[in-house]
Amino acid sequence: MFDAMATALDREGPIPLGRQLYEVMRAAVLEGRLTPGMRLPASRDLAGILGLGRNTVVGVFERLAADGFVEARGAAGTIVARLDPALLRRPAPEPAGRLSSRGRALAAVARGAARPHGAFVPGLPALDQFPGELWGRLMARRLRQSSAALLGFEHGAGWPPLREAIARHVAAARGIIVEPERVLVTAGAQGALDLLARLLADAGDPVWIEDPGYLGARGALVGAGLDLVPVPVDGEGLDVAAGISRRPDPRFIYVTPSHQYPTGVAMSLPRRLALLQAADAADAWVIEDDYDGEFRFDGPPLAPLHTLSPRGRVIYVGTFGKALAPALRVGYALLPPTLVAPAAAAMRHTGHAPPLLVQATLADFLMEGHFTAHLRRLTTLYAERRAALVEGCGRYLSDYGTLMRAEAGIQLAFRLFDPDDKAASAAALAAGIVAPALSRTVLGDTKVSGLQLGFAAVPAEAIDPALRRLGEALRSRG
Amino acid sequence: MFDAMATALDREGPIPLGRQLYEVMRAAVLEGRLTPGMRLPASRDLAGILGLGRNTVVGVFERLAADGFVEARGAAGTIVARLDPALLRRPAPEPAGRLSSRGRALAAVARGAARPHGAFVPGLPALDQFPGELWGRLMARRLRQSSAALLGFEHGAGWPPLREAIARHVAAARGIIVEPERVLVTAGAQGALDLLARLLADAGDPVWIEDPGYLGARGALVGAGLDLVPVPVDGEGLDVAAGISRRPDPRFIYVTPSHQYPTGVAMSLPRRLALLQAADAADAWVIEDDYDGEFRFDGPPLAPLHTLSPRGRVIYVGTFGKALAPALRVGYALLPPTLVAPAAAAMRHTGHAPPLLVQATLADFLMEGHFTAHLRRLTTLYAERRAALVEGCGRYLSDYGTLMRAEAGIQLAFRLFDPDDKAASAAALAAGIVAPALSRTVLGDTKVSGLQLGFAAVPAEAIDPALRRLGEALRSRG
Repeated sequence: MFDAMATALDREGPIPLGRQLYEVMRAAVLEGRLTPGMRLPASRDLAGILGLGRNTVVGVFERLAADGFVEARGAAGTIVARLDPALLRRPAPEPAGRLSSRGRALAAVARGAARPHGAFVPGLPALDQFPGELWGRLMARRLRQSSAALLGFEHGAGWPPLREAIARHVAAARGIIVEPERVLVTAGAQGALDLLARLLADAGDPVWIEDPGYLGARGALVGAGLDLVPVPVDGEGLDVAAGISRRPDPRFIYVTPSHQYPTGVAMSLPRRLALLQAADAADAWVIEDDYDGEFRFDGPPLAPLHTLSPRGRVIYVGTFGKALAPALRVGYALLPPTLVAPAAAAMRHTGHAPPLLVQATLADFLMEGHFTAHLRRLTTLYAERRAALVEGCGRYLSDYGTLMRAEAGIQLAFRLFDPDDKAASAAALAAGIVAPALSRTVLGDTKVSGLQLGFAAVPAEAIDPALRRLGEALRSRG
Repeated sequence: MFDAMATALDREGPIPLGRQLYEVMRAAVLEGRLTPGMRLPASRDLAGILGLGRNTVVGVFERLAADGFVEARGAAGTIVARLDPALLRRPAPEPAGRLSSRGRALAAVARGAARPHGAFVPGLPALDQFPGELWGRLMARRLRQSSAALLGFEHGAGWPPLREAIARHVAAARGIIVEPERVLVTAGAQGALDLLARLLADAGDPVWIEDPGYLGARGALVGAGLDLVPVPVDGEGLDVAAGISRRPDPRFIYVTPSHQYPTGVAMSLPRRLALLQAADAADAWVIEDDYDGEFRFDGPPLAPLHTLSPRGRVIYVGTFGKALAPALRVGYALLPPTLVAPAAAAMRHTGHAPPLLVQATLADFLMEGHFTAHLRRLTTLYAERRAALVEGCGRYLSDYGTLMRAEAGIQLAFRLFDPDDKAASAAALAAGIVAPALSRTVLGDTKVSGLQLGFAAVPAEAIDPALRRLGEALRSRG
């Protein structure tokens, strides 16, 4: 028995001999090879048999005793624990890998797992513009002040100065007047959707979602086990009448009215009013995802839907992912007063709160005016890139489709004449150009064929050659 | 009409006059006071009536036109939009504040909303030991290198170098051998529980939870809509036979075997084996929450349950919240291979990934050996504080109960003779001492009366006087 142990030890390998002996003896107890109640050799003797130092063996005995595999009986020596034989040599079947139904659904929503970079990844901001040095300075200052308040338990609804700063930001940038107490700081827009989906709807509840629509939202809503009702989008945005005829009783309605994802359509005023009327009729919430409405290039900014519902039927969701960096994982929701306390409690139970140090740094960044300046700089830069995209599409792609008009946002949709946008997207990818097919964002029976073109992360001078290559790829499809 | 607008403007207040006029005119359109199709005065004339600059009025007209409230018809002037009268003056009922059933459940789990500080808040580490300056240096270095990889889209399962660093850490600190690919980086232990609860079980599925048990876990499981089966805890940990007799078919089992929360009991080996056997029989997962098992003061560290289930039935959950700071919001789960891809996909849909900058800084902190040194320093400090607590309990509290033995963790439970621990806890709080009642962590019919005493955040010299005050408070209850 113990001789076999001696040969089982790997004296050259990286694993300490004490740990090896512990594992070997533990396995022998668990499998019954060391008989329950049997007395082990004294540590000195075993050390001799195994060719180990006595202290090593004593340490192993102590660990085995602490874990209950042996009992130290003082002068009577060390005894193998008297475990119930029925518990030994347990068959240990491979776990079947059981997921819940919602777990399977959650895992199954395709969402561009590869996360590529380069022209024209949608949704990606100009990461090289991230003010890293300034951010580091602000964070270091907070760390020097490092009060316990920034390290201890999170605040359910968010770091109060950040909630204040966000309220000021949405007032200045989006014309939304909201008390800081109604701001909920979330783990990005995605975290807000995941939380709201559960807070507002139960598994099986119907909810309206735009079709085509944002895959991230679809993932959150599917993950919450909801019954997604795809509602078609036309040139005025979500077709409210179609939604009513499909399901008049949604629990909530998810919309991107400023810059519909992925078509870029801005929802018309009559549609906005009809949407609110439908929501009133169903006593449904409306979740307005204003994911990149801050960037608007032609004319004055469009008022968020939120401003039409002062009594708070509309929950506004925003993010710093598009203007700073997706990996910051900070977003926010503007809640009606009745939802604030439940949402804050839910935040604690889900662990969703962003790190306080990040929240505090962002609060300083906003309060000291850096964000406004940063947004202004980015908007100028993005306007250049957008102009290059519009011009290049006219130059190289006019035989293959039309660019869909959109005044806001960091990506544009190009509608293809070719009905098979997935094949077109694959041809583009083969030529080194990322241009996801619009049809992959379709959930229902909406017919759409096109390509998403994100321009924010592509330098203006790289846009023309990339579009030329895209044009060649589309031509090669004939 | 327009004269009334002139008087409605607040010319002294902080809100710009243009924004005020926009709001006033918008409301007039929405409520039908400006008749659909009516022609507005020319901007120059309206500026005169209102006593505003013409540019201000032109800007307001442009915004109203962008939002669809008016139409600019060039030489024909500006016309109020012809909105369907049925959409105007909508009644806008107050939303009923509808929450989902799970939302109400999530909001209702009490969890010490106040989050107090001071002696003896359980679960709180020594925040003044947080290595803020070093952390800031490491983070600034990362920000200087600021690669797009740290700013762009998150990795579903975590930043790869951090997963590697965590695999090394659990090998060194807890004797767990696991491939980095099986490490999932989560938003604290709470984020791991919230994710796993949904991934592994559907609403209504039965799951075992320790009774008394950790309220944070209860919040996550209730929030996932699960059927919580409270299983009593005795001196050997969770009573597996009792669990089987209550519900033999849990979908998963939640346990804290190293240092049961809140009693501090370490689960015995026979119980561990019986637990795994019960899990095998039910094809159930086991979630091992090792929330503060890194801190062990007497004898060698206890092996995690995970090491008994090499085929991966046990999912191990750890956190950096107890050794660094809760507000960092970084934890991890060690997954069986079959769960890695679904969990990574689910992470993306829930927005749960910690900010990459935080992940990268933590990876450097671990890889460069700072965490090991920090843990060693903290363990020494906590051992002092723990000794002061044990001594003080003997000195001041021996008439009122007994300290429950526990070799690990950053809090101890004091069992009271008094059956009404909530009243005792209230008396303590009135004397300025936080000592939550054990009974508030009871979900089922387990009888327990005691106080939780967290010592990690209390300087040793403050412990004795705090316990004296606690003793006086208990005496005053008679």
